[in-house]
Amino acid sequence: MTQGPISRTIAKTFSPPVMEARSWLEGVTFPPDRPLLNLSQAAPVDPPTAELRAAMVAAVAQDDSHIYGPVMGLPALRTEIAGQWSALYGGDIAPDQVAITSGCNQAFCAVMSTIASAGDAVILPTPWYFNHKMWLDTAGVETRLLPCGEGMFPDADAARALIDDKVKAIILVTPNNPTGAEYPKGLLNAFMDIAKEHGLALIVDETYRDFHSQSGAPHDLFTATDWPDNLVHLYSFSKVFRLTGHRVGAIVASTDRLAEVEKFLDSVAICPNQIGQKAALYGLQNLAGWVAEQRDEILNRRAICEEGFAKLAGWKLLGSGAYFAYVEHPYDIPSDQVAKMLVQQQSLLILPGTMFMPAGTDGKAEKQLRIAFANADSDGLSDMFRRLKAFRP
Amino acid sequence: MTQGPISRTIAKTFSPPVMEARSWLEGVTFPPDRPLLNLSQAAPVDPPTAELRAAMVAAVAQDDSHIYGPVMGLPALRTEIAGQWSALYGGDIAPDQVAITSGCNQAFCAVMSTIASAGDAVILPTPWYFNHKMWLDTAGVETRLLPCGEGMFPDADAARALIDDKVKAIILVTPNNPTGAEYPKGLLNAFMDIAKEHGLALIVDETYRDFHSQSGAPHDLFTATDWPDNLVHLYSFSKVFRLTGHRVGAIVASTDRLAEVEKFLDSVAICPNQIGQKAALYGLQNLAGWVAEQRDEILNRRAICEEGFAKLAGWKLLGSGAYFAYVEHPYDIPSDQVAKMLVQQQSLLILPGTMFMPAGTDGKAEKQLRIAFANADSDGLSDMFRRLKAFRP
Repeated sequence: MTQGPISRTIAKTFSPPVMEARSWLEGVTFPPDRPLLNLSQAAPVDPPTAELRAAMVAAVAQDDSHIYGPVMGLPALRTEIAGQWSALYGGDIAPDQVAITSGCNQAFCAVMSTIASAGDAVILPTPWYFNHKMWLDTAGVETRLLPCGEGMFPDADAARALIDDKVKAIILVTPNNPTGAEYPKGLLNAFMDIAKEHGLALIVDETYRDFHSQSGAPHDLFTATDWPDNLVHLYSFSKVFRLTGHRVGAIVASTDRLAEVEKFLDSVAICPNQIGQKAALYGLQNLAGWVAEQRDEILNRRAICEEGFAKLAGWKLLGSGAYFAYVEHPYDIPSDQVAKMLVQQQSLLILPGTMFMPAGTDGKAEKQLRIAFANADSDGLSDMFRRLKAFRP
Repeated sequence: MTQGPISRTIAKTFSPPVMEARSWLEGVTFPPDRPLLNLSQAAPVDPPTAELRAAMVAAVAQDDSHIYGPVMGLPALRTEIAGQWSALYGGDIAPDQVAITSGCNQAFCAVMSTIASAGDAVILPTPWYFNHKMWLDTAGVETRLLPCGEGMFPDADAARALIDDKVKAIILVTPNNPTGAEYPKGLLNAFMDIAKEHGLALIVDETYRDFHSQSGAPHDLFTATDWPDNLVHLYSFSKVFRLTGHRVGAIVASTDRLAEVEKFLDSVAICPNQIGQKAALYGLQNLAGWVAEQRDEILNRRAICEEGFAKLAGWKLLGSGAYFAYVEHPYDIPSDQVAKMLVQQQSLLILPGTMFMPAGTDGKAEKQLRIAFANADSDGLSDMFRRLKAFRP
C-alpha cells in the first residue's frame, strides 16, 4: 500500500469499459480507404441544431446562467417535463415529482443511493448497462443477476425467485442498453406487480425512449394513481437533442423519494449546469418536429441493420432497437478478442459482451457484441457490413 | 413505508442547509429601503468577465463541445493545471495526476469513494463544510469529529488521538469553509506527518486558495517527491472565475488513486460538461491579472469585516478569510433562531452554526454564525453592520 488506502468496494469495481475500448485505438494506423468506424459509445456524432446552439449562446448572455441554481434543477424545466410526461404517459406527474440531474448516469446513482445501502441487494438483468453495475459495486450493493432470455427480455417469474428481505429494487432499461430490446407493456406491468407485492422500487430507465419503434406511450405505468409508491423513472437529454457534452438528465419519483435525492444531488453536484438545463428546456419546447425526423432516421438505420444481419452468414441478431444491435458472432474466439481484431483488421470499434455480464455466463459474454448502429448513417452501415463480411479472425 | 424502500444511510443524512435557508425567505416581504442582503451561500454575485463569456460563446460554435469527452476531463485542461500547480507549489505534478470533475463537491465525493467504504472512518474537523458531512453520512462512513480551537485551527495531537485501524483519511479545508481560517504551513505539515505515520490519505481542499491573504504558495506539501503517497488535493473553478453555474473542479492525486477515481466519475458523470471545462481553461490561460484584482477586492472586504466586528458590541470574530467570517453572537437564543430573526427583522440571510456541527457541541453551534461576506461590496458590508447593530432579537 504505497499510495494510501483504497476502498474495498471501489477496488472490486471494474474500470470504465468505454475508456478501455478507446485504448484499443492507441497506436493503430487506419488506412485512408478504411478510416475508423466507431460504433462503441452511444453518442450522436453531429452537433445540436443551429437553433439549439443559438439558444445556448443566448443563455451565455443571461446573468443567471452563471450562478448556482436550485439543487433539484430549474423550475421551468421541471414544470415542462411534468407537463409533457403527463400528456405522453396519460398520468399525473407534478413538477415537484421531477428532479434534474447532471446526466442520466447521475440520476441512476442518486436514486439508488436513496433506495439501497451497502449490504442491501437489487435485481439487475444481464446483459447490464455497465455503469449501473459499476455504481452498485462501488456502493457495496449486491447485484442479483437476472439473465435475459428469448428476445433479450427479463423473465418476471425468474425475478420473483431472486427476492428476499435484502432485495430493495428491480432495475429495467427500455429500450435496452446494450440489447436494444423494447420491453412490452405487459412485461413492464408484470414487473410492477412484483414491485408492489414486495414493496420494492421499480427503476425504469428510458434514456432511449424517443427512438422507440412504437408511437405514443411505451407503457402505462404512470396511469395508476399509486405510481409514486414504487415507480422511479429515469430520462436523458443527451441522445434526443445531441447534448452528450452538456450532461442533463431527469428523475421522476415520489416527492418523498426526491427529498432524499436532493441530499445526494446537493452533496455530489450542488446543481446541474445551467447552460445544459436551458438547452434541454429549449429542446422540449421547440424541437418536437425535429426529434420525430431523427427518430424516423434511426428507425431506418435499425431496419438496415436487421436486413444486414439476416444476410450475414453465421451471425445472429439477438436484439435491436433505439441505438443498439446486440449480436452473436460465429467464431470460436472470445468476444473481447474479436473486438480487438476488428479494430486491427477492419478499423471497426464495437464492444464485446464481456463488458455487459460476468465472464463465463454460459459462454454468452464471449459470443456476444454490442453495436451502436445509430452512430452511422446508411452508407456507414453498408460499410460496416462489408467489413464484417471481409473479417477473417 | 408507503413510498418504497429508503436507504438507511441517506435517511440519517441531513437535508441541504442552503436550500433550508432559502426556504426561510418564502413569504417574507422585504421593504424597499431594506432589500434582502443574502450572505448565505458562497457565490460570486456578478457574472464572469465579458471575455470569458465570449470564450463560452466560441465554445458553443465548436462541434466537440457537444459530445462526450474523456471521463477524466479535457487533456489541455489537465495539462494546464499540472503546469500551473507545479509552478505555484514548487513541486512536480504531471497531467495524469490531475482529474477534472463536475465541481469540487464531486471531487470530494469521488476521492472519498476511493478511500473509504461503508464502515470505515475519517477525521473531520468541526465546524465542517456541510456537504462533506452529508456525503460521508450517505456513504455510511463514520466521521470522527475534531473540534477546532483558538484561531479555528484543528489540533494535530488531538487528531492523532482519534486514529485507529478504521480511520482512512483526514479532511482539511484551507482557507476554511465555514470559518475562513487560513491554515499555517506548519499545521499542514504536522497533519501530513500524521498521514505518513499511519498510512492515511490527507485531503486538502483549497477551493478558496485564490483569495488567500498570503501571496505565493500557501503550503509546501507538494515539494516532497513522495506527495502522491498521501496527499489528495481539491480545487474549484467556481469562485475564482465566477463559474458556479457551470460546475468545474479538479483533483490532484497519485495516478493509482486516479485510476479508482475514474471509475466513480464514469459511473456518476461520464464526463464534466464541455463548456464549463473550456471556460476554466480560458480563465487559467488568460485571467491571472483579473484574478489578482478580485483577490485585492476580497481582501479589502475582509479588512472591512474585521474592523466592523471589532467595533460591534457583544459580537466576536472567531475566524475570517477568503469568502467567510465566522462569528459568535451575543444572544441567549440558538443560532438558527437568530438567523431566522435576522431575515424577518433585518432582511439579512446568514447561516447558523447548527449547520456546521452537531447540536449541543458545548453550545458552540448555537452561539455561532457564518457570513459569506465576499458576496457584498463595501457599501453592502456597511449596510450589514448597520443591520446587525439595529438587530433586537
